[in-house]
Amino acid sequence: MGGDHAPISVLDGAQLFCARRPAARLRLHGDGAQIRALLESRPAARAGSSVHPAERAVAMDAKPSQALRQGKGTGMWNMLVDVEEGQAQAAVSAGNTGALMAFARLRLRTMAGVDRPALIANWPTLQGFTSVLDAGANLEADATQLAAFAIMGEAFHRARHGVQRPSVALLNIGAEELKGHEEIREAARVLRASNVDMDFRGFIEGDGISHGVVDVVVTDGFTGNVALKTAEGLAKVMAGFLRAEFTRDGMSKLRALIARPVLQRFRARVDPRQANGAVFLGLNGLVVKSHGGTDGEGFAAALEAAARLAEARFMTEVEANLARFSRAPAAAEPGAA
Amino acid sequence: MGGDHAPISVLDGAQLFCARRPAARLRLHGDGAQIRALLESRPAARAGSSVHPAERAVAMDAKPSQALRQGKGTGMWNMLVDVEEGQAQAAVSAGNTGALMAFARLRLRTMAGVDRPALIANWPTLQGFTSVLDAGANLEADATQLAAFAIMGEAFHRARHGVQRPSVALLNIGAEELKGHEEIREAARVLRASNVDMDFRGFIEGDGISHGVVDVVVTDGFTGNVALKTAEGLAKVMAGFLRAEFTRDGMSKLRALIARPVLQRFRARVDPRQANGAVFLGLNGLVVKSHGGTDGEGFAAALEAAARLAEARFMTEVEANLARFSRAPAAAEPGAA
Repeated sequence: MGGDHAPISVLDGAQLFCARRPAARLRLHGDGAQIRALLESRPAARAGSSVHPAERAVAMDAKPSQALRQGKGTGMWNMLVDVEEGQAQAAVSAGNTGALMAFARLRLRTMAGVDRPALIANWPTLQGFTSVLDAGANLEADATQLAAFAIMGEAFHRARHGVQRPSVALLNIGAEELKGHEEIREAARVLRASNVDMDFRGFIEGDGISHGVVDVVVTDGFTGNVALKTAEGLAKVMAGFLRAEFTRDGMSKLRALIARPVLQRFRARVDPRQANGAVFLGLNGLVVKSHGGTDGEGFAAALEAAARLAEARFMTEVEANLARFSRAPAAAEPGAA
Repeated sequence: MGGDHAPISVLDGAQLFCARRPAARLRLHGDGAQIRALLESRPAARAGSSVHPAERAVAMDAKPSQALRQGKGTGMWNMLVDVEEGQAQAAVSAGNTGALMAFARLRLRTMAGVDRPALIANWPTLQGFTSVLDAGANLEADATQLAAFAIMGEAFHRARHGVQRPSVALLNIGAEELKGHEEIREAARVLRASNVDMDFRGFIEGDGISHGVVDVVVTDGFTGNVALKTAEGLAKVMAGFLRAEFTRDGMSKLRALIARPVLQRFRARVDPRQANGAVFLGLNGLVVKSHGGTDGEGFAAALEAAARLAEARFMTEVEANLARFSRAPAAAEPGAA
């Protein structure tokens, strides 16, 4: 069990999740003795789970290549074998992202038509949630990959949020004539010319993401990661400003006391834990990455996302859409399939 | 005079600026009759400025190439000629960004050692302000250009914010082994090997920007523009959430009334107008771009930034640093000078 506050945060999450979903079954991989001891005080998790001791753990700071050399026998590895063998419908981890991606590619392999998996994140907006991919699984993406991200992201958003016809746009910058990298413009042409039935809206600028202008925002992993981290940092700083002003002096604290119910509603609305759980798309299996620094409530949200996606069987739809896309004439170029 | 609310916002800004700096002199370019009429009710601006009627204006939505064909005789063009001829120490505009960049390159040309100018923006942080460049003047940047951005950005930050030894970092993503595009890693090597005296801190991730981890953040124009716009959008949405919760019902409004002094301090701290005024770096002249959608207070902030930079003579320092950089062995590769 990985993560900055593991295994406590993971087992707190398991307890919350199992209490809410008594029919769900968890397979817990990690230090067997430690997990069993922590389950003592977490009755719902104990009732809903089985413990599978692992020989060793993946270090949080190990590079993917290092982790791969000692992968077999780790809890992360065993968890993915569970998905591969159909013992589990989804894998959820707050551990080392690079290792999780490397292990998952090796054990589950990518779907036909997918070169590399993408990481899709849940972005809280004015309207609810927007799905943003790639959140950092790949540094770069060519036009065909961006188009594949759009197709996978659309199916994902429908499955996770129940939106029948999610709108999709490519992240771009506004300056005319400088308008975006060639691969972004080409991806738009590919999507428009393909016979994938999708509500494709063209380009969106950064300020449109939080406004929830579209349901799915597509970009390369470098840009997506920068945008997500930047937003995360800003949200924390703004919340910090608010706290600082409300605790500046006695009078401000008194005002905070009176404003508290409203401030609590605001905090709940911008709580990053509810958005926790990024998903690797394009693998033959469902793998959910929890934020490493989250707590029990956040980890429970990642488990809930995994359960909902497993129920929605969105992977079948992704595969069907990708197959339709690769048969389309516009995408029939080298690397399209 | 360009901008979404021009010429009112520009003249409101001129009034505020001239009232605060009675010794400053403004040369106002645009529709002469309109400007003179608006100056009637703005005595400080009227006393501190001269009016220079222009034959025509640059359309806000014109592409740079279109704007260039009809550039001569526009207010924007004449303003830059003022700087070129030494009639003015700085140019400030809320108009079409692409046209401003194109005109400025043509009239003022780039400094020796600078291939293309970069746009540097003022990012409000927990600590004060961080300077971020390139904010969108160029789509891409190679290692040498990123290193030149770092040098220009450092000198800029010292001049604008009075920090003696600004810290500088390159924007990157965290995932090990995927660690950033090759040009970013190469830029770090170039800066470390150069004999430019700079507090260079290596890489920073997106969440570090708003925390004010370093004074100057360097990235390519695409990534910088996405990060800035994304933050702008999120800040607006978070402020909107807060407003929505405090106006949800009668009781909440009552609580808002009591919390008002604190909320006003919070609002002042996150007010984007105080950060207004991005600067084109690398030109033989000072050009400040105001946000198109700002009001008088925001435009006054852009004028104040221009005045402060003109006084600090940071351009001389930028030139000296760039010259030192191009003489450094590590930068003595094709395209370095």
